[in-house]
Amino acid sequence: MSWTLTADAIGDLARGAAVLGTGGGGDPYIGSLLARQALAQHGPVTVVGLDEVPDDALVLTVAMMGAPTVMVEKLPSLDEVVAPVHALATYLGRPVTHVACAEIGGVNSTIPVAAAAALGLPLLDADGMGRAFPELQMVLPTLYDVTASPLAFSDEKGNVGVLQTVDNHWTERIARVACVEMGCSVMISGFPMSGAVAREALVGGSLSHSLAIGSGIAEARLAKTDPVAATVARLGGREFFAGKVVDVERATTTGFARGRARIEAPAVESDAAEALELSFQNEHLVAQSGDVTYATTPDLIIVLDAESGEPITTEGLRYGQRVRVVAAPSDPRWHTAEALAMVGPGYFGYDLPSHRFDGTPERELVEAGA
Amino acid sequence: MSWTLTADAIGDLARGAAVLGTGGGGDPYIGSLLARQALAQHGPVTVVGLDEVPDDALVLTVAMMGAPTVMVEKLPSLDEVVAPVHALATYLGRPVTHVACAEIGGVNSTIPVAAAAALGLPLLDADGMGRAFPELQMVLPTLYDVTASPLAFSDEKGNVGVLQTVDNHWTERIARVACVEMGCSVMISGFPMSGAVAREALVGGSLSHSLAIGSGIAEARLAKTDPVAATVARLGGREFFAGKVVDVERATTTGFARGRARIEAPAVESDAAEALELSFQNEHLVAQSGDVTYATTPDLIIVLDAESGEPITTEGLRYGQRVRVVAAPSDPRWHTAEALAMVGPGYFGYDLPSHRFDGTPERELVEAGA
Repeated sequence: MSWTLTADAIGDLARGAAVLGTGGGGDPYIGSLLARQALAQHGPVTVVGLDEVPDDALVLTVAMMGAPTVMVEKLPSLDEVVAPVHALATYLGRPVTHVACAEIGGVNSTIPVAAAAALGLPLLDADGMGRAFPELQMVLPTLYDVTASPLAFSDEKGNVGVLQTVDNHWTERIARVACVEMGCSVMISGFPMSGAVAREALVGGSLSHSLAIGSGIAEARLAKTDPVAATVARLGGREFFAGKVVDVERATTTGFARGRARIEAPAVESDAAEALELSFQNEHLVAQSGDVTYATTPDLIIVLDAESGEPITTEGLRYGQRVRVVAAPSDPRWHTAEALAMVGPGYFGYDLPSHRFDGTPERELVEAGA
Repeated sequence: MSWTLTADAIGDLARGAAVLGTGGGGDPYIGSLLARQALAQHGPVTVVGLDEVPDDALVLTVAMMGAPTVMVEKLPSLDEVVAPVHALATYLGRPVTHVACAEIGGVNSTIPVAAAAALGLPLLDADGMGRAFPELQMVLPTLYDVTASPLAFSDEKGNVGVLQTVDNHWTERIARVACVEMGCSVMISGFPMSGAVAREALVGGSLSHSLAIGSGIAEARLAKTDPVAATVARLGGREFFAGKVVDVERATTTGFARGRARIEAPAVESDAAEALELSFQNEHLVAQSGDVTYATTPDLIIVLDAESGEPITTEGLRYGQRVRVVAAPSDPRWHTAEALAMVGPGYFGYDLPSHRFDGTPERELVEAGA
């Protein structure tokens, strides 16, 4: 099923995408600015379901790569957004037919809207993760042997590069150092794949899902019901902590926003643990309280404003915020042994098994994948 | 005038090129290995004078980029040498007609021989500097507004990249971080230019000149005459110091071999200064003794074995070597104010005016260029 995306849906789309972004994927406000500008200039975008993509389509993902802490201060222009797509089309020697999101997030679900509008191309109702992850090889297409390269990158100064690498890890390594040198955020386009492969390797319906989550939050607020509960229901997740942000430790290193946040629960409001610690690298990776692990990557850990239900990104965490923390299941393909080796807690340096969003560890899978 | 380059000339070519490499440009032994292999596999290379290049030729430079300290341990394959040329031809969408040296040096004058042989293309009797310099934008074509990009790079693993940048400094910056990530040495090809531009922007005759210097050293040894004197005469330079290497400080940082060497003269052999200090970043940049400056970049500072006259590269400097140090004039275009701003001592962080190879400072030019 295809549908038309117009500027008035961008706010809900960006908000819902920021929920699925699990702390990363960029700030929804920043993301909507560029998408709105592109839609105003170039008209609405046709969003196409995976079932409708022709087998021989040439699909490219479009995303912003870098530290979200930098993205909020260094907005891309439309020229920068389309430059890597043009460079890749030149390198491949054939026209691109569809644009797709590499991940779901406040910026990374709206930048592809801007690209599709400016290029006059349809956008797939899909993405490569069903959430956001910090490194570029961390997409389901990697598990389907889709190569990240040729991958192109561009900056706001007008510099462009094209990489053709031996594997997706090397694309990440070289693109990351280039990204850091170019100012810690660049636009990228890559993972060229046919429509047939896209249908199998991507997560379908993720833009519709984001839009539903985003508008659900707005509707709950209008109806004076609980927007967090509405989101939890849509995600099939659970709220496991509520409290006040009392400490945020954050550093922008090697091109990522890395850090920790501590959230304390007032005794009256919660009879669970007294304090929760969230660890992140662009996205939330681990939620723990003392010895108890509530959830880990690849499942989603989502911080929402306690009253408004607005998603709070890792770079947006501030002392004093009243928040509620939600865990939700990821796409089930992220729980295979091969996938956990790529995006499980162990990859990020945490010596603990992956925990499902309900808090139960999945030791066997991790051991098989390690 | 065109001539044929065969494997038996490679030793002299590499030796002479290492003299002009002013400490950098790579080890002549390493360089000759790959060139000999390519000539054995693919046959001799036709070397073409600048006066014979057609105006509409598509000339690309080919070079190794990185730290010479790493190059001696990480030999490129022929596949790695030709990969950036192929990537660039794909990106440009038209065939390359001629290969040229970006700089003159033990590796960087022989790698293009290997590339020309493997690609079946003629090699220009020319290079971009008439010497070696550490950063890729430091070629005379930059002064003629030739862009370094599109520039391609490759490593021994099979990774390839193409850059299209806003200026030659940005090509250097992005290629350098990629180079460091890829293992501190990569093959590059870039500076696409027409034959007409090459004729104006390159230094003509530099391969013939290298060959003459290299064979001159060999002939002087056979004739039991002084090979250092033969080299000094060919360069129009002067020998200004002789002594023993007593200290070498060297670090491979940010992709360069940086350091200092101290050479002491035994009182009986020299009535000049007692100790000479050489500072280098891949290439020798400054030769000083106390307050006296003997020579600085862009003129050539060359360390030769005191007996055999063999050039010693900066990564080859060792305690106890008996050496003679020679200064020689660079291509006169390096002494313009614009060029000195790019390659003079000030660019490399030395707070002193550029000194001509005869030791006289050229203050006026530096002030105009600063």
